[in-house]
Amino acid sequence: PATTGRWTDHWTADTLASRYDEIRARTEQLAAPLSPEDQTVQSMPDVSPTKWHRAHVTWFFETFVLAEHEQRFAPYQDKYWFLFNSYYEAVGPRYARAERGHISRPGAHDVGDYRGNVDARMRDLIDTLDEGSLDKLAGTIELGFHHEQQHQELLLMDIKHVLSVNPLQPVYAGSPDPAGAPDRLGWVDVEGGLVEIGHDGAGFSFDNELPRHRTFLEPYRLGDRLITNGEWLDFMADGGYDRAELWLSDGWGRVTGEGWRAPFYWQQVDGTWFEHTLHGTFPVDPSLPVTHVSHYEADAYATWAGKRLPTEAEWEHAAQTLAGEPAPDANLANADTFHARAAGPPTGGLRQLFGDCWEWTSSAYLPYPGFHPAEGAIGEYNGKFMSGQMVLRGGCALTPPGHTRASYRNFFPAGARWPMTGLRLADGGA
Amino acid sequence: PATTGRWTDHWTADTLASRYDEIRARTEQLAAPLSPEDQTVQSMPDVSPTKWHRAHVTWFFETFVLAEHEQRFAPYQDKYWFLFNSYYEAVGPRYARAERGHISRPGAHDVGDYRGNVDARMRDLIDTLDEGSLDKLAGTIELGFHHEQQHQELLLMDIKHVLSVNPLQPVYAGSPDPAGAPDRLGWVDVEGGLVEIGHDGAGFSFDNELPRHRTFLEPYRLGDRLITNGEWLDFMADGGYDRAELWLSDGWGRVTGEGWRAPFYWQQVDGTWFEHTLHGTFPVDPSLPVTHVSHYEADAYATWAGKRLPTEAEWEHAAQTLAGEPAPDANLANADTFHARAAGPPTGGLRQLFGDCWEWTSSAYLPYPGFHPAEGAIGEYNGKFMSGQMVLRGGCALTPPGHTRASYRNFFPAGARWPMTGLRLADGGA
Amino acid sequence: PATTGRWTDHWTADTLASRYDEIRARTEQLAAPLSPEDQTVQSMPDVSPTKWHRAHVTWFFETFVLAEHEQRFAPYQDKYWFLFNSYYEAVGPRYARAERGHISRPGAHDVGDYRGNVDARMRDLIDTLDEGSLDKLAGTIELGFHHEQQHQELLLMDIKHVLSVNPLQPVYAGSPDPAGAPDRLGWVDVEGGLVEIGHDGAGFSFDNELPRHRTFLEPYRLGDRLITNGEWLDFMADGGYDRAELWLSDGWGRVTGEGWRAPFYWQQVDGTWFEHTLHGTFPVDPSLPVTHVSHYEADAYATWAGKRLPTEAEWEHAAQTLAGEPAPDANLANADTFHARAAGPPTGGLRQLFGDCWEWTSSAYLPYPGFHPAEGAIGEYNGKFMSGQMVLRGGCALTPPGHTRASYRNFFPAGARWPMTGLRLADGGA
Amino acid sequence: PATTGRWTDHWTADTLASRYDEIRARTEQLAAPLSPEDQTVQSMPDVSPTKWHRAHVTWFFETFVLAEHEQRFAPYQDKYWFLFNSYYEAVGPRYARAERGHISRPGAHDVGDYRGNVDARMRDLIDTLDEGSLDKLAGTIELGFHHEQQHQELLLMDIKHVLSVNPLQPVYAGSPDPAGAPDRLGWVDVEGGLVEIGHDGAGFSFDNELPRHRTFLEPYRLGDRLITNGEWLDFMADGGYDRAELWLSDGWGRVTGEGWRAPFYWQQVDGTWFEHTLHGTFPVDPSLPVTHVSHYEADAYATWAGKRLPTEAEWEHAAQTLAGEPAPDANLANADTFHARAAGPPTGGLRQLFGDCWEWTSSAYLPYPGFHPAEGAIGEYNGKFMSGQMVLRGGCALTPPGHTRASYRNFFPAGARWPMTGLRLADGGA
Ligand SMILES: [Fe+3]
Ligand SMILES: [Fe+3]
Ligand SMILES: [Fe+3]
Ligand SMILES: [Fe+3]
Repeated sequence: PATTGRWTDHWTADTLASRYDEIRARTEQLAAPLSPEDQTVQSMPDVSPTKWHRAHVTWFFETFVLAEHEQRFAPYQDKYWFLFNSYYEAVGPRYARAERGHISRPGAHDVGDYRGNVDARMRDLIDTLDEGSLDKLAGTIELGFHHEQQHQELLLMDIKHVLSVNPLQPVYAGSPDPAGAPDRLGWVDVEGGLVEIGHDGAGFSFDNELPRHRTFLEPYRLGDRLITNGEWLDFMADGGYDRAELWLSDGWGRVTGEGWRAPFYWQQVDGTWFEHTLHGTFPVDPSLPVTHVSHYEADAYATWAGKRLPTEAEWEHAAQTLAGEPAPDANLANADTFHARAAGPPTGGLRQLFGDCWEWTSSAYLPYPGFHPAEGAIGEYNGKFMSGQMVLRGGCALTPPGHTRASYRNFFPAGARWPMTGLRLADGGA
Repeated sequence: PATTGRWTDHWTADTLASRYDEIRARTEQLAAPLSPEDQTVQSMPDVSPTKWHRAHVTWFFETFVLAEHEQRFAPYQDKYWFLFNSYYEAVGPRYARAERGHISRPGAHDVGDYRGNVDARMRDLIDTLDEGSLDKLAGTIELGFHHEQQHQELLLMDIKHVLSVNPLQPVYAGSPDPAGAPDRLGWVDVEGGLVEIGHDGAGFSFDNELPRHRTFLEPYRLGDRLITNGEWLDFMADGGYDRAELWLSDGWGRVTGEGWRAPFYWQQVDGTWFEHTLHGTFPVDPSLPVTHVSHYEADAYATWAGKRLPTEAEWEHAAQTLAGEPAPDANLANADTFHARAAGPPTGGLRQLFGDCWEWTSSAYLPYPGFHPAEGAIGEYNGKFMSGQMVLRGGCALTPPGHTRASYRNFFPAGARWPMTGLRLADGGA
Repeated sequence: PATTGRWTDHWTADTLASRYDEIRARTEQLAAPLSPEDQTVQSMPDVSPTKWHRAHVTWFFETFVLAEHEQRFAPYQDKYWFLFNSYYEAVGPRYARAERGHISRPGAHDVGDYRGNVDARMRDLIDTLDEGSLDKLAGTIELGFHHEQQHQELLLMDIKHVLSVNPLQPVYAGSPDPAGAPDRLGWVDVEGGLVEIGHDGAGFSFDNELPRHRTFLEPYRLGDRLITNGEWLDFMADGGYDRAELWLSDGWGRVTGEGWRAPFYWQQVDGTWFEHTLHGTFPVDPSLPVTHVSHYEADAYATWAGKRLPTEAEWEHAAQTLAGEPAPDANLANADTFHARAAGPPTGGLRQLFGDCWEWTSSAYLPYPGFHPAEGAIGEYNGKFMSGQMVLRGGCALTPPGHTRASYRNFFPAGARWPMTGLRLADGGA
Repeated sequence: PATTGRWTDHWTADTLASRYDEIRARTEQLAAPLSPEDQTVQSMPDVSPTKWHRAHVTWFFETFVLAEHEQRFAPYQDKYWFLFNSYYEAVGPRYARAERGHISRPGAHDVGDYRGNVDARMRDLIDTLDEGSLDKLAGTIELGFHHEQQHQELLLMDIKHVLSVNPLQPVYAGSPDPAGAPDRLGWVDVEGGLVEIGHDGAGFSFDNELPRHRTFLEPYRLGDRLITNGEWLDFMADGGYDRAELWLSDGWGRVTGEGWRAPFYWQQVDGTWFEHTLHGTFPVDPSLPVTHVSHYEADAYATWAGKRLPTEAEWEHAAQTLAGEPAPDANLANADTFHARAAGPPTGGLRQLFGDCWEWTSSAYLPYPGFHPAEGAIGEYNGKFMSGQMVLRGGCALTPPGHTRASYRNFFPAGARWPMTGLRLADGGA
């Protein structure tokens, strides 16, 4: 995530305060079903405890807004700066990431107190700013909104893992969507040429979406929906996890070294595959998009299918020209659904472009030509992670609405399986 | 600890039920100061979460008593058998020990419900047994008492570590004892000869204390109290942690590999050494016994001092002949003190023999001549750990009163530092 | 590296046999200064023993040429197929890479016998082929030439490491070049536009250089020579290895986790930096190119300098248009020099483009648009490594002449330091 | 191991020089079948290369004899002190043990030169000593003899492992002994009482055999020969490696964690078990002693058989009283046999007591009462390893004749499998 991106133009104290309240309340709403014990656990090093997420996003406002702009600033608790800093080297030492689950205090309720305290001070600050100061500060506060939204998604991703390792199979929320109908994969042609990608419109973007720049694309085509569980079962039945020739070398190393036989949250019981979701554990539904597969698995699938993954430029150019921004009914993190749903009937266009599952691309996560990170600690947001990761596009069912767009670049290591990832095929292009 | 030891002779339904209630209540009393979050954390693989201890000791009664003797037995929750089994291979698969901290549910309150359910069923069972059945069952129930007392001690040891890694320095309980006066180490001579060790008296013992047997001891002498923090500071000032020639080879590997510079819970701030205790963090008090040192450190200290550690036979023979059983004022786990205290004034005899700190001996933990483990799962209690560990004697400030005796054999690997360990010197003997 | 690349057009039995002899003799010449013991050691998992390289390139001819085309083929030694296969999954099981140094037999001399046997059979085969068969086979044999040349470079890279861990500081060969004169970095402007990269000329290429394709470049400029040791010392003096803000996050993890303080083969003795080379250990010469730095270090240097690394497209386009192919006096692996040398006087163009040190680019190693690996085992050559690595361009002082070109793509993980790597700065481009 | 043991009384310059020559020549004779490559490999961290052993025993004489007694002493090569020191902290820094296989130079022939140089200087020194000096020095030189003999055994143990990982199955020496006849295990009763153990006779002993001291033994009995491969196959057939209840907890962890299914050097091919030996790989012979089993395996076998392992005191007392010292026909490291042989016909006494396989005892390796290590570097020989190891008694087919005796204490960690170990059962004793 990022920084010297672009900002929404006309924040007023009222709209800023109201958006602040909305975002902050949503975080607490997402944490509400979770017990203090649920909020404490770190089930693997990549996962952070729920109460850590709740505190860390609060720390962000305290550190980058209050500490620099509040009169007579004093931190709520000195040691929270150490506990809830994530990776900002410039802000000082940090508590080891892999040991976040060793910290029982502050407890879930104490974190609520911390949030309340910072909320009150933030509202005071926003109320009392003159227009010039507000203009200067709005960008950082807006970054805080997007930062907190990112952590809302991470909170869900992470608690999904926490609940998955528990033999009691706890359920986070309500019921999943009903199954869909079988559906043949269609293709959408895109012309290409010397196109532009990167953010340029109005409103917010992260720095890694900038600058908008030219790139050349040969004509190509994209699958019109995500690959489904049913198609993935075909891949498995055809020896997908047994045939070295389908895999990147590093991927094959993981398959054999870690015993991968199916997507991350699948388990076979008496011959039937089940999938752990935030709504409970269910038999694998062939009409749903396959999810929680690594880049290596997505790439092996595409090789098996005689196709490939799209580049991020191909994806973005198609999204820009064919879809624009996410439709209101995209399957993003709405109140009651936290899992991908079946693609609707064919439309002739690209279905499931936003939401459902993050789509692995074949592009490494690297700076755009002319990229420069921001000055200071906030400049650590995105640029320093541009190494050893792959780009994903489009958002997933855990992504807050308003938090993704055609130019949005998500990124994870090629072996990551706990994010809600999926894949769309591409073809042509050369 | 163990099983086919000796049993108290005359349990009645009343005394058994009353002792059951007392032990069970004490566990809950010890857990009471801890939040749900505190009870969830596993701060290193050796540590178990508080709520795991509370559930595991309950599982012991459910598995070894109710499952075998309750009419129409059904487990409270099937999966608890998997979650709360510790190391009994014969009972079935177990949840990985190092991942006990990944389990948020059952929560602390749910564990309370589990305890309540088993308590009610246990009382019913005890009430309805005829005398013959009660005789047969009392031994296993009594073993359950001692098992739960062991876990009371472990619960305190473990939560001490959990709180120690928290930068907020949480306090478990009240205030520590006041400092004592400086005190010169004295010596007590023991004659030796062909002596007997091992449990033989009335009442309970673990199987590893049996059989009582003959062993030969040359005349020897023992330090009349535990080594103090003040004496340990002298060792440190004299290069104790820098001089390879003082150390066992494996110990020196730990010193250099893990950077040991002081006892486990000591930290130096601006030139002053502080010690983390369950009562808070305080400057190191030179009059208190040094504690949380490994066998390697204890051995290096003894070498530095030109002395040695006692064998377990020397310790037990001296305790039998000079002290008998723990005195009522021994510093065991009483209500308000969870730390070693200063030795009182010299008595001419052995001070601090029971309580304060477990005393490392120079004896490896091995079976006594003629030892045989019990049949069945309960036989896994002690015997299978007789490899790669050293014997400790005497009990510590976290040991429940009634849970130690002259013949009691505790054991830990030579590198363990999170138990409340200390040392007493020995000399002569050859 | 690769396979369905392009092939030299007109091999005859004579030219093929003569080239075969020349390449094979060069390998033995490079191994000649090394004792049987030198040829046996694997000093880290990435390194292979010299005698393994000598055998493995022989196995390649036996497996991909003789086994498929020799009449009455029988392997020289069955178990050699297991021992000297490197990563071809399709050919069968392989001996664990990290344990190549555990294999004392076949010894260095036995490997010589193996080489001799295969050489004789290869010459027989080439002599007896009719023209049609020769046309079909020449491509695979030519691939074997380039494969063996690659291993000639690896043999030197690897033995440099083996000798470096030996306190006796053994010397592989003669004397290094004399120091050069100080030299200011100049810049060369390149226009960019919609350009083509990828191999297209006559002669051999690996599959990863194909297909030639269009890409768009904004105007940019490149440093006119490699960064020197003198410049690197400035970076170090300015806290280069201490300032997190200069580093990619993964790179900073290596700096702190592995204690990086200088290039891989530098060691400081009494305040002076020394560099281990194949010619011996010498004080660091400020006029020489810095070498054995990882991508992370190269990137941090560029950030510190306010510049960036070039993309592989920028590098290749400049090389194509400004330099063409390597000049005869490029510092590639000539008989007596195995280290980078100082840049000559400025020329107005790009100096040190080929040879001296492989140049890290900012491009991840990914397939070109339209890339397809070859069928069969030989298709494992390049494509399956297109994950988690960065592209390097230009060749180094260990690269055999004739084995690099403007379109040649080398690749290593971003943390690799034992290859002979360096860097050239870029600027502009957006 | 050891030092301030007892010494042979009457060395003269002649007998000392002649014994020196004999021991030194034997080392070179044992290394003679090994190529330079064989002598270079370290196939696991516990193993040292043959040429390292040859150099290290030479370093011992140079360091502890020549450096302290030679006039105008100068080391043969400064860096050899660093390379060939094994674990003497007092002598200075050491090259990392696990990286001994990374050192190609000095080569096998260079080590021969080093040996020749030190031999010449040692002979000069011995020749020129007056009687008083000779008396003072003879003890250290004699220790050097026993040290070199220990390394002769280690050299064979280690090269056995090196050759075992090679798919070519190289043979070190000649042919194994012919198979023996089936043989029923008999028992020998021993009375026990207050007995003495420890070295007391004339001649050399290591310090860990001292002081001789009293210990008490109840009556016991010992198996009259080693357990055979045939008996081990019965154990395996009865689920020996599948039944947790037979195993020490740490042992079971190794069985499951490392997949132990049979003794270390056994491999099953098409249903038949084969055993790697220094004489080649052969079908497992049921009449031979089982060898290369860990203490954990030996203990599990004894539990399965309803018996136990002997204590070291039981073993030594029986050996002293029933056997005295090794018989001339004991199967120690004679010229042509490097493997255990079948027990001869029953004798009514203890067969195979010395030689064939080291016998695991149930005793941890700890100091005898009154043990004190020697002053100075040589004091590091034995005492500092008295932690985490088990005692073995009797010698094996790789032990040089004259290098074992009734009081000799060998020791290895309980999980070690590459030494030539076996077991004898015990019963009674309580
Ligand atoms: Fe964050
Ligand atoms: Fe327990
Ligand atoms: Fe190769
Ligand atoms: Fe040695």
